[in-house]
Amino acid sequence: MSSTRDIDNLIELMAKLPGLGPRSARRAVLHLIRKRALLLTPLADSLQVVAETARECLNCGNVGTTDICDICTAEKRATGELCVVEDVADLWAMERSGVFRGRYHVLGGTLSALDAIGPEQLRIPRLIDRVTSEGITEVILALNATVDGQTTAHYIADQLDGQVRLTSLAQGVPIGGELDYLDDGTIMAAMSARKDI
Amino acid sequence: MSSTRDIDNLIELMAKLPGLGPRSARRAVLHLIRKRALLLTPLADSLQVVAETARECLNCGNVGTTDICDICTAEKRATGELCVVEDVADLWAMERSGVFRGRYHVLGGTLSALDAIGPEQLRIPRLIDRVTSEGITEVILALNATVDGQTTAHYIADQLDGQVRLTSLAQGVPIGGELDYLDDGTIMAAMSARKDI
Repeated sequence: MSSTRDIDNLIELMAKLPGLGPRSARRAVLHLIRKRALLLTPLADSLQVVAETARECLNCGNVGTTDICDICTAEKRATGELCVVEDVADLWAMERSGVFRGRYHVLGGTLSALDAIGPEQLRIPRLIDRVTSEGITEVILALNATVDGQTTAHYIADQLDGQVRLTSLAQGVPIGGELDYLDDGTIMAAMSARKDI
Repeated sequence: MSSTRDIDNLIELMAKLPGLGPRSARRAVLHLIRKRALLLTPLADSLQVVAETARECLNCGNVGTTDICDICTAEKRATGELCVVEDVADLWAMERSGVFRGRYHVLGGTLSALDAIGPEQLRIPRLIDRVTSEGITEVILALNATVDGQTTAHYIADQLDGQVRLTSLAQGVPIGGELDYLDDGTIMAAMSARKDI
């Protein structure tokens, strides 16, 4: 590297971001230096703000800039429905779809015997508290359709059995999906959950 | 988006980096927030430093944190050889290879009639100045092997003809390259420049 230490240091840090490697980090840094006023300075300022203010919501585990996040404090969203997701990224995906108007609970992962992640390492005790304290009527288990996700869903369903209506996302053919490209498991799920037209 | 405005703003800025789109920007921002002490704060600080100090070398066009870059000021590198490259990224690539110990001249692009880029828009007049003022004995035209790169090389060669030794990078089979995967142009170049063993 011929650039000076500050620039090398920036490239090294950028290369640690998911989706960027050393080569793309160099490209990104050159791009930033060329677009100083438009991109570099705003990005530096924005990162500084987020570094100072970002925190996890104490109630649901969402990421925000206040102790209790926007969704938990929104009066309009107090519907009695609670959507349980693994991760903040999943919460964001649900929000983008705009289909759900209740509140969320972010577990922060899935149960995993191998990685020694039990209910206490996730936000499962807090979920059980919330179901009673917030007068929840329906818990939607929107966990990933993976083995770990489904194991976690079964565990939560066991814990909450009889206290509340429990639902999970429908499984089947994705919109725009072609049968030829789907795995056998999805086709089997779609077939066994087939509907009258 | 359910996250607050500061976080949305950061995601928007990150998505403008080359190599990142909206989805990977969201992933990167979540990763940054989770690794606040290890990555987010250092990255914010580093960007702030680079935003304040990064500048183009007034002599060669390299990017650094001083008016005249480290390479131009290094006593050890005053070899009378000047390597002409299109872009700072090319200079960095040459430096990584460690094969060249002279100085550089970054053109900042290639001649292009379509985009109305003439010699004055690049650092070509400055290059011709340097050849005389710095006592350069050899100019190595390390421009990309593209049509624009080679047109620019020819133009510079015309301008400097007779004043200095002019060389260009050898063209041929890349190290580790398989003939079957090479384009016809490369094979023709390698064939016509073949060497006795």
